[in-house]
Amino acid sequence: MDLLYMQTFVSVDCVVFGFDKNQLYVLVVRRNSLDSDRKGFKLPGSLIYQPEDADAAANRVLNELTGIHKMTLKQFKAFTSPKRIADKEDAEWLEYAYHNSIDRLITIAYISLCKITRKLNVASKYKAVEWISVGQLPLMPFDHNQIVEESLKEIRNWVENDPVILFELLPVKFTATELRLLYEAIHNRKFDARNFHKKMNQMPFVLPLDEYQENVKHRAARYYKFDRVAYNKRKKYG
Amino acid sequence: MDLLYMQTFVSVDCVVFGFDKNQLYVLVVRRNSLDSDRKGFKLPGSLIYQPEDADAAANRVLNELTGIHKMTLKQFKAFTSPKRIADKEDAEWLEYAYHNSIDRLITIAYISLCKITRKLNVASKYKAVEWISVGQLPLMPFDHNQIVEESLKEIRNWVENDPVILFELLPVKFTATELRLLYEAIHNRKFDARNFHKKMNQMPFVLPLDEYQENVKHRAARYYKFDRVAYNKRKKYG
Repeated sequence: MDLLYMQTFVSVDCVVFGFDKNQLYVLVVRRNSLDSDRKGFKLPGSLIYQPEDADAAANRVLNELTGIHKMTLKQFKAFTSPKRIADKEDAEWLEYAYHNSIDRLITIAYISLCKITRKLNVASKYKAVEWISVGQLPLMPFDHNQIVEESLKEIRNWVENDPVILFELLPVKFTATELRLLYEAIHNRKFDARNFHKKMNQMPFVLPLDEYQENVKHRAARYYKFDRVAYNKRKKYG
Repeated sequence: MDLLYMQTFVSVDCVVFGFDKNQLYVLVVRRNSLDSDRKGFKLPGSLIYQPEDADAAANRVLNELTGIHKMTLKQFKAFTSPKRIADKEDAEWLEYAYHNSIDRLITIAYISLCKITRKLNVASKYKAVEWISVGQLPLMPFDHNQIVEESLKEIRNWVENDPVILFELLPVKFTATELRLLYEAIHNRKFDARNFHKKMNQMPFVLPLDEYQENVKHRAARYYKFDRVAYNKRKKYG
């Protein structure tokens, strides 16, 4: 009976979303690979260290990845299949990376958000860090592709419950079109531009500015900004 | 460095909700206690066995608890604080229960739902199983009180996104008042009866029956039932 209980390693993995033009991107890292490594990119992650809880471990991973000290972060699901490290190459890489034989690895997945224009201050432990659009992700180790899939469903719910996260993906000043394209990228469907504009005008936390685009060929669009005070009021009394 | 990586045990714990009259209840088990055990009740849970993923472990726990083979189940959060088993008594009980010295225990918490009138077919491993209203829960071991607290927030979101779960807590035939009292218990606030009735009439999946209460002192209220076909249509095209 006792042998059935798993003594397990537990990690965190982070799906960091960025947005540019009309696409969602995910931040991936190139692992310090074995020679045979065909799956070069993976989600940033780490085993949880002794004094940490999972949130602290995810914050550490994000900080090493971006240099940012406090990023929006949401735990969304533990991935626990006993087959997660069934792939021989993945198991070898784990042993190589952690100098430990690991029989089972459960991971707690997080979603985070980052302006894609932000200069990243990446720790030297990574060979490379890259934004890849969600539709173009390569085959990644473990169940990392599945984690991204499920994180997309999660971010849709998150936006519905807490639209503030939209504005962490947009520039400080954005046009109605940019906001709509972000909604479309997250929900993976088109929104009628006119209806969307109406919907946006009903958001008390989206403030029109007296500024317009410059040097554009089409009619210059108005800029808007996110009003955190109005948003927090809405949260409180809404 | 290697010593910092935690080799950890991972469990599941289940918050099973029931509803009666106007209160939410949680199913707790009395653990096979040590003599000194002051915290008699806990959430039902188990370490995850080798061939299982967390969902399978939670299903097993629920089956041992109720005899039911397939219950609605939702993973909602991993609880990972290194201090979860800092209490000496809790650590002793773990060692007693699992014949293993456990340094760190991460748990993956689930929410489930059960009609409170259902006869439970409890496995003999439990000394006792009891429904306790959420306001009356005793001090439980580990962070089980905190897990219940957070599960209450989670069930509110869940109801908003997927109201079908309400009908797993109600009898097959229910009155408008019963449905309102369930909403009130989940949201922990009053709803105006008339407005609620209007709201209910707009739910295409709540069907009025030609049946009324019998043997009541007040005016006999109409019964309603949940229409799963209408609900699934709504999910599909909504």
